[in-house]
Amino acid sequence: MEIAKVLYDFTAEPGNNELTVREGETITITNQGVGGGWIEAQNSRGEVGLVPEDYIEVRKFAAPTAAHVPDLSFFDAFAPPANNTASNGNDPWSVWNQDATGGSSNNWAAQPEGTVTGKSAAPDPWGSNTQGHPQAYQGPGAEDDEWDDEWDDVKSNSESGEGGAIQRGGATGSSMKISLNKFPGFSKSGPELFLLCKLPPKGKEKLTIYMGEVGPVWSYPEAQLDCVVADPKKGSKMYGLKSYIEYQVIPNTTNRPVNHRYKHFDWLYERLLDKFGSAIPIPSLPDKQVTGRFEEEFIKMRMERLQGWMTRMCRHPVVSNSDVFQLFLTFKDEKEHEQKAEKDEGVGVMIFSSIEPEGPDLDPIEVEQKCEQFSRFTKAMDDGVKDLLNVGQEHWKRCTGPLPKEYQRIGKAFQNLSSVFTSSGYQEATLTDAMNEAGKTYEEIAQMVAEQPRKDLHFLMETNNEYKGLLGCFPDTIGVHKAAIEKVKEGDRLVAASKITAQDKATMAKRVSTMSYALQAEMNHFHSNRIYDYNRVMQLYLEEQVKFYETIAEKLRQAHSQFTTM
Amino acid sequence: MEIAKVLYDFTAEPGNNELTVREGETITITNQGVGGGWIEAQNSRGEVGLVPEDYIEVRKFAAPTAAHVPDLSFFDAFAPPANNTASNGNDPWSVWNQDATGGSSNNWAAQPEGTVTGKSAAPDPWGSNTQGHPQAYQGPGAEDDEWDDEWDDVKSNSESGEGGAIQRGGATGSSMKISLNKFPGFSKSGPELFLLCKLPPKGKEKLTIYMGEVGPVWSYPEAQLDCVVADPKKGSKMYGLKSYIEYQVIPNTTNRPVNHRYKHFDWLYERLLDKFGSAIPIPSLPDKQVTGRFEEEFIKMRMERLQGWMTRMCRHPVVSNSDVFQLFLTFKDEKEHEQKAEKDEGVGVMIFSSIEPEGPDLDPIEVEQKCEQFSRFTKAMDDGVKDLLNVGQEHWKRCTGPLPKEYQRIGKAFQNLSSVFTSSGYQEATLTDAMNEAGKTYEEIAQMVAEQPRKDLHFLMETNNEYKGLLGCFPDTIGVHKAAIEKVKEGDRLVAASKITAQDKATMAKRVSTMSYALQAEMNHFHSNRIYDYNRVMQLYLEEQVKFYETIAEKLRQAHSQFTTM
Repeated sequence: MEIAKVLYDFTAEPGNNELTVREGETITITNQGVGGGWIEAQNSRGEVGLVPEDYIEVRKFAAPTAAHVPDLSFFDAFAPPANNTASNGNDPWSVWNQDATGGSSNNWAAQPEGTVTGKSAAPDPWGSNTQGHPQAYQGPGAEDDEWDDEWDDVKSNSESGEGGAIQRGGATGSSMKISLNKFPGFSKSGPELFLLCKLPPKGKEKLTIYMGEVGPVWSYPEAQLDCVVADPKKGSKMYGLKSYIEYQVIPNTTNRPVNHRYKHFDWLYERLLDKFGSAIPIPSLPDKQVTGRFEEEFIKMRMERLQGWMTRMCRHPVVSNSDVFQLFLTFKDEKEHEQKAEKDEGVGVMIFSSIEPEGPDLDPIEVEQKCEQFSRFTKAMDDGVKDLLNVGQEHWKRCTGPLPKEYQRIGKAFQNLSSVFTSSGYQEATLTDAMNEAGKTYEEIAQMVAEQPRKDLHFLMETNNEYKGLLGCFPDTIGVHKAAIEKVKEGDRLVAASKITAQDKATMAKRVSTMSYALQAEMNHFHSNRIYDYNRVMQLYLEEQVKFYETIAEKLRQAHSQFTTM
Repeated sequence: MEIAKVLYDFTAEPGNNELTVREGETITITNQGVGGGWIEAQNSRGEVGLVPEDYIEVRKFAAPTAAHVPDLSFFDAFAPPANNTASNGNDPWSVWNQDATGGSSNNWAAQPEGTVTGKSAAPDPWGSNTQGHPQAYQGPGAEDDEWDDEWDDVKSNSESGEGGAIQRGGATGSSMKISLNKFPGFSKSGPELFLLCKLPPKGKEKLTIYMGEVGPVWSYPEAQLDCVVADPKKGSKMYGLKSYIEYQVIPNTTNRPVNHRYKHFDWLYERLLDKFGSAIPIPSLPDKQVTGRFEEEFIKMRMERLQGWMTRMCRHPVVSNSDVFQLFLTFKDEKEHEQKAEKDEGVGVMIFSSIEPEGPDLDPIEVEQKCEQFSRFTKAMDDGVKDLLNVGQEHWKRCTGPLPKEYQRIGKAFQNLSSVFTSSGYQEATLTDAMNEAGKTYEEIAQMVAEQPRKDLHFLMETNNEYKGLLGCFPDTIGVHKAAIEKVKEGDRLVAASKITAQDKATMAKRVSTMSYALQAEMNHFHSNRIYDYNRVMQLYLEEQVKFYETIAEKLRQAHSQFTTM
């Protein structure tokens, strides 16, 4: 029997044969062969139950290895080196706030580890927005090890050394958790890796940037990739001990459905983040900080948000065209694809090495101006979106709370008077009936008011939350560029100190220009999507609002017609 | 120079040469010849100013006499004997609550002084309803001696020995302040005066009650009397020292406008109360407990309510046909009418002596049943009306407070996003304009929401407040009947004790039957008015509500049309 130390708190899912353990607690392993990433253990009080393997440290092997999920070898093959470091908790915007006003020479100061992270951009994904929204949103205090058996998704968090998903910037409201230290050689030198490296012989990967009407644009495929996330099914493993949800993903290319669990989506997210995070904002997946108490709403809400995330990824010409994404869309059985698994070297800033801009090199000044402009805009929009989310949330609360109650009381008051009138013994059927009808009408209105937010406000909130998440990624993406620009600025000094050659400096300038093309292409992509999305959601919102008020007017007209003047 | 003792607190109207004095304070009279019911006095601190004559007690003459307002000799002529006694503070309903369940034999116990009063039915006329309603409603803490120079109306209150209008059950929400002790010989015997008196030879006064479809009904005039209260004008007296408001009253009979001040209406109210109070609920005038800080709203609101009160009086076949009411409608100059002034003996319960029912005498049992039914109904409706008033008041607050603020914030949020989008440098005029329009639309909606209550809820509230006031009078009216019924029940005992003869008892029964006819006629009058009023106000309310929601829907449809899908 082996002794193990508990690394992170884990609360048992009731009726799931699990054992609640607390960080630092020592437990005795009673059965290591349970599988599925679980071990059976006994605590000091003699209680026995299942505990996630990578929540504990057994003397035999180290946590990082254990962190890999045995039944996911296929995904493991793609997994990044496990030496992720904790991301700092700076407000990712703080840097740009300074920049917007003063020079940006303090970038490095702001990122001592050379780490750019957006993780803390949304410490509380929904912020104060959570209350009042549909049940499935109500995350605070939710257990991470919910019925959906996603404890193993926690891996990526526990790696970050911050003790699990609580710190994870999840949900549409979160930002990328990119930690540049992931990328070999980058740890102390920011984008230098790309700026100064001997470019590797171009692989098949080639990201061309064209000059469009609006400026640099990615090359878009003729046929827009799209996919449907649908038909969530409850599956189970370990002889039904653990249950999980599988979602069907159906790409419009193959039309062949593939099943994925949340953790598979999370795996895809991690891969995309590693590969494109420096050039393209990869929004986090919908948060898993949601209570499992309302399975129906929860699954519906998560599917809706996974759909939103996938749609956004499909829409992106670079992401949707990438091997890993295509693999995800066609992947059926893990085993069958193992051989496909191979380490990808073009991750992190090296993504820029595959970018080929059509057009002249850009002047570093222009590059910096563009960069500043983008960071100002994204910051401003982030504020605007959060503002709308806050008032929307308040409105949601009022419309689902006090307002309908009031309409109901008005309805009751009318009906009450109606029945008093009936007791008068005076013949007045018309009035009493009409009063009663009016009362019922206001009760109906009460119900309409309470249900309306789900029909319109909900989508306005969802879209803006998606954008809150997306905007939370820009500080990282832009940060890489800021860092590169700073390096180029240092160029002369570095040459003088013969740290680099004049040739190197020229190369750096050229490559910053390439990065800028990429950033501009990405911003233009963002803008065109933004315009499409906001047109769509505003139309939907106003359309529903019109219907809402028209229906009320019609109901009241009906009620009015019941009254007669003598 | 004379010394005087201050009887009641009086707070000076700023800029009106007045002197603030407190009850019990001793002041020195510096000029008694000021006139207009004022004297000039000096307080211990040497401050000099005007004080209402009847707020003080000068050694020379006693307060009650002083209480009569010199410049109102005409009204004085009609004034009741000054020996009004304080009214007890029982909840007028409490008596009936008992009756509804147990027997009514404890009426006398409940009214030790033989005094029935509804004064305390609405200690705070608007109750909690006050806040949130239009300014003019906001009474609490208002001075009685406001700019409208109504200190002299306080007379009727100071007489009641309760130190001024604060205790006065005013406003539409109040009830009659009938004090039966007013009526000679009635003080200890309730309705006995009428039940046992030798009926005086019928005067010209004759109130016939016919049998209509609905039962006993008053005889209604062919032409419905009506009048308009309009064109309030600010007048002044005492060389502009004091100002007041005169309202024009134009009866549809003569079409000749007569001017009346609030206190003249109050005089009419007192007369009608004395004369008809026992048989007909006479609702109080609109309260004067309103702050004078908002002259415009205040005058408008008071005029509206005086109009409502007058309309109700005009509609009443008995009241509108009475000498005193007709006098009020034709009265122009006080002096010219002095000779008309004559004591009216047919006041109080004696009103019943002029009533001539067409139809057989009613069995005392039936009389009591009717009476019980009416008191149950009026109590139930009183509750229903107050309930509606409460929720209406809350709704008013929400619609004029938080709700529009929220719509405004939504509007601002949209406009804010719009301007952020404009700063993107990306060409998207259509979207930014549309977002901006949508924002403006929600700001317009905010304003509509805030203004709507004055267009519909206001009238619903006003009508229900009128009824709250009217219903508050019924306990008094019904009380007189209950008392009479009790007396008749005592009949046998009284005969046995040879307090009365068998003949007397028969007379009592007959006269109670007459009273019952009157009560039924009054209830039928009440019902037909109620049906008319509630049909009218509900139609108005729903009509405005329909317009409101239709307008919003239209505005939103406009905003919606601005968006385009690409």
